[in-house]
Amino acid sequence: MRKIAVLGIGRSSWYLLDYLNKRAAENNWTVMACDLNAELLAEKTKGLVHVTPLELDIQNAEHLRGVIQDADLVVSLLPPSMHPQIAAHCLDMGKHLATASYVSEAMAKLDLEAQKRGITFLNEMGLDPGIDHMSAMKAIHDLKAHGAEIVSFESYCGGLIHPEDSNGNPWQYKFSWNPQNVILAAQGGMTMFKRNGELHCVPWNRVFESFTTVSNPSNEVFDAYPNRDSLSYMKPYGLESVRTFIRGTLRRKGFCSAWQVFVLLGFTDNNTVLPKEINTPGKLIDCITGRKFGLAFSEWLIENGFINVEQKFYFDYLEFDLPLNLQLAGTAAQMLQQWLSVKWELQEKDRDQVVMLHKIGYQLHGQSHELNSYMELSGLDTHHTAMAKTVGLPLAMGVELILTQKMPVGVQVPTSEIWYSPVLNLLEKEGIGFKEFTL
Amino acid sequence: MRKIAVLGIGRSSWYLLDYLNKRAAENNWTVMACDLNAELLAEKTKGLVHVTPLELDIQNAEHLRGVIQDADLVVSLLPPSMHPQIAAHCLDMGKHLATASYVSEAMAKLDLEAQKRGITFLNEMGLDPGIDHMSAMKAIHDLKAHGAEIVSFESYCGGLIHPEDSNGNPWQYKFSWNPQNVILAAQGGMTMFKRNGELHCVPWNRVFESFTTVSNPSNEVFDAYPNRDSLSYMKPYGLESVRTFIRGTLRRKGFCSAWQVFVLLGFTDNNTVLPKEINTPGKLIDCITGRKFGLAFSEWLIENGFINVEQKFYFDYLEFDLPLNLQLAGTAAQMLQQWLSVKWELQEKDRDQVVMLHKIGYQLHGQSHELNSYMELSGLDTHHTAMAKTVGLPLAMGVELILTQKMPVGVQVPTSEIWYSPVLNLLEKEGIGFKEFTL
Repeated sequence: MRKIAVLGIGRSSWYLLDYLNKRAAENNWTVMACDLNAELLAEKTKGLVHVTPLELDIQNAEHLRGVIQDADLVVSLLPPSMHPQIAAHCLDMGKHLATASYVSEAMAKLDLEAQKRGITFLNEMGLDPGIDHMSAMKAIHDLKAHGAEIVSFESYCGGLIHPEDSNGNPWQYKFSWNPQNVILAAQGGMTMFKRNGELHCVPWNRVFESFTTVSNPSNEVFDAYPNRDSLSYMKPYGLESVRTFIRGTLRRKGFCSAWQVFVLLGFTDNNTVLPKEINTPGKLIDCITGRKFGLAFSEWLIENGFINVEQKFYFDYLEFDLPLNLQLAGTAAQMLQQWLSVKWELQEKDRDQVVMLHKIGYQLHGQSHELNSYMELSGLDTHHTAMAKTVGLPLAMGVELILTQKMPVGVQVPTSEIWYSPVLNLLEKEGIGFKEFTL
Repeated sequence: MRKIAVLGIGRSSWYLLDYLNKRAAENNWTVMACDLNAELLAEKTKGLVHVTPLELDIQNAEHLRGVIQDADLVVSLLPPSMHPQIAAHCLDMGKHLATASYVSEAMAKLDLEAQKRGITFLNEMGLDPGIDHMSAMKAIHDLKAHGAEIVSFESYCGGLIHPEDSNGNPWQYKFSWNPQNVILAAQGGMTMFKRNGELHCVPWNRVFESFTTVSNPSNEVFDAYPNRDSLSYMKPYGLESVRTFIRGTLRRKGFCSAWQVFVLLGFTDNNTVLPKEINTPGKLIDCITGRKFGLAFSEWLIENGFINVEQKFYFDYLEFDLPLNLQLAGTAAQMLQQWLSVKWELQEKDRDQVVMLHKIGYQLHGQSHELNSYMELSGLDTHHTAMAKTVGLPLAMGVELILTQKMPVGVQVPTSEIWYSPVLNLLEKEGIGFKEFTL
C-alpha cells in the first residue's frame, strides 16, 4: 500500500483526484486530500472511494510533517511560494514531490540533494508549463531524428472562454484560473525572446503592446503576447542556435490592445495600498485618470488618445460607472481584480477553452519547412474546466510514473522522452491530443 | 568628553565632519569617522583635528558593536537599507542615532522602545527630506499664527547642475548624488498627491509625463514631477483639510519628457539581469528597440513617435552609438547608470546647484493669498557640492542639538519647532536661507 498526499484542493484538484482514484485499486494506492476547507474537501472527494479527505492547516508545521511522513509522494497544489518549504520537508523525510509550477531558484538548488536521497521532485507538469514542454520536445526530437535542423521555434498557449459562451463580452475572456496571475501578468521583470536572430527585451509596461497574431487550423485569429523569459528555455529545449525562440500566451483578438490600457494607466499596480476613500470602480478611475465629473471612462480614454472609437465597447461592457454595493479595497491591482471577478466570472454552464499551438521552422534536405501543431480542449461547465483537466491530468500521470516506473531522480522538468512519451500517450486517451496542420 | 561615531563616509560627509570638528572643542567632543575605505577616510578627515579616522567593516558585527558601544551618538550615512540594523544596536546599547533618510516602516516601529530608553532617533534631517520639512513647517506655523487658513501646499526641490556648467548638455543635469536614485526614481509604488480637492494616483511609468512647470524668482522655469506619496505628509504637516498637497522634484525644463522615454522603453528596469551578450549601450538599445541595423537611437525614437524632432539632441548628446571600451553589464537600469555616469559625471570645476521652492495658498481676512518661498545654493566644485552641504549641515546641526539641548526622544522627524527653529537659524548663518517672492 503506497500513500499519496495531495496538499491544497485548488481548481485543478478534481481531475487529479479522479485520475488517482481510478488507478488506486490496480496500484494499491491510498490518496489523502488535504485542505483547510472541510466543505471544499467534502465536495471534491465525493464518490472517490480511494481518496480520504483530511483537514489540514499548512501553518501547523507539526501536523504537516506528520502528513508528509505518512506519505510516499506529496503533490503540492499550494501557491508556488510555499513549494520550497514543502520541498524541504520532503527532502528531510525522503519523499517524492510533484507540482505543476515553474522551477524556482530555491527549488533548483535542491537538485543535488534530492538526487543523493534518490527522490524525484517533478515540476512544471501541468498545462503551461507542462503539456507545452512535452508536446514541443516530442516534435523537436522527432524532427531531429529525421535529420531536420530546427531554425525557429514558437509556442503559444491560452486559457480562454469557449467562443459560444462569451455572451457579448467583447474581451472574450473569463477567469478559468487564478485571476491574480492575469492581473499581474508580465510584471516582475523583462520579458525576453529572440526573433530573426535578434534578442528582444520588453519591459512589463510594453508587453501587451508587443503582441503578434497567430491563427489556428480553423483560421481563428488570436493575439499572442510574449511570456516571461523565453531565452532561458533555449538550452533545456536543445535549441541554443535557433534564430527565433518565443513562448507566448494567447488571448482572443483585440484583448491585448485593450488590456494595455489598464497596464499603462496603473490599474495593475500591486505595490501601493490606495487611500480608503477610493472604494468603488468609479473612484479608482477618478484618481487614476483625473477625469472631470460625469465623463464616462471610455469617453475619457478616447479623448486622451488611449483607445480608438472601435475599442469603446470593451470598457463600456465593464460598467465601471455602475452604482453598486461591492466595496473595493487594497492596491489598484486588487481592486481591478475584485471588479473583474464579478464581470469575468465563469457562469455555471460556461465552457472554458484551452488552446495550444506550436510553430517550428526547420531545414530538411536543403528545403525550408514549417510544422504547425495544435491542441484545443473545451470544458464541460464551471466545475469541469478544460484548464483544470489539462493541469490536473498531467500531474496525476507524473505521479503514476514516479510510483510505478523507474524515473529519474532530482529536480525534474518533463522535457525528456522518459517523461513526455508515456504522459502524451495517456493524455491522448483522455482526449488531449495535438494535430498537425498547414497554414 | 562625548563621542560621535559617523558610519560611512559618503558624499555629504565632508560638510558634516567639518561642522562637527569646528564645534568639538567648545562642546568637548571627539568624532570617529568610520569607513572601510582607508584612502577615502584619510582624504575626508585631513586637517580635522578632532576627527579620528577608523577603518571599519560594517559586516564585522563585533567591531561595529564595539564602535557603537564606545559612542554617545551614532550618525549613519550608510545606505538606508542598513539603518534598521544600526538602530537595533543603538536601541540595545542606549545610543542616539541621526540619519538623513526617510523613516522606514522598520524605523517607525522602534519609536516606543526608543522613547522608553530615553534616546533620540532623528531621521529625515538632510535636504529633501530635511530642509524641506523645516522650512515648510516654519512657514505653515507662521501663517497659522497670523490667523491664516491654509488651502493649498506645494513644495519642490531639485539637486541640479549650475546653468553655466551645463556645457552644452541638453539635459542640464549631472549626478551630484547617488545616481541609482535618479535612475530608479518613482519606482516601487504609486505616486500620490491631491490637487484641487481630487486625489491623484500615478503609476511609476507615468510619473515623468505627469510633470508641471514652476518658476523661480528669476523666472527660470523648471519641470516638477510629483515625488512618492505626498498624501502621507498631510497629517504630519497639520494640513489634513487642504485641497492641494504636492511634494515634487525639480529638473531643468525639458528633462522630464526626455527621461520618460527611458522609463517607457524599459531602460530603468532593475529586475532582470540581461543576457551577457548585451554589453554596450548600442546593444542595449538594439534589444529594447529592435531597431534596424544602422538606425541611430534618436532616429528610431522619432520614427516610432517617442520624441519630436526638437528632442533629438537630448539623445544624440548621450552618444549611445559611440564605439567604446566601457563594458556594460547587469540589469537595463544598471547599464543605463553605468553609461550616464560617464556622460553626466561632475567635472572637477563643475558647480552643482540645489533649489527649493514652496508655494502655499491661504485665506486671510476673507482674501486669498499665495506665499512663494525660494532657496538656491550653488556648489564650489565637485568636492564641495551644494548637495553635500545641504544634506551634511542639517544633520550635523541635529547632532549638535541632541548632544547639547534637551530634545524630544523616540523616532523624530524635524517638523516641530523645537527642531526647525534652531536649525534654520544655524543654516541661515551658513548661507542657506529662503527668500519670499511674488510671481
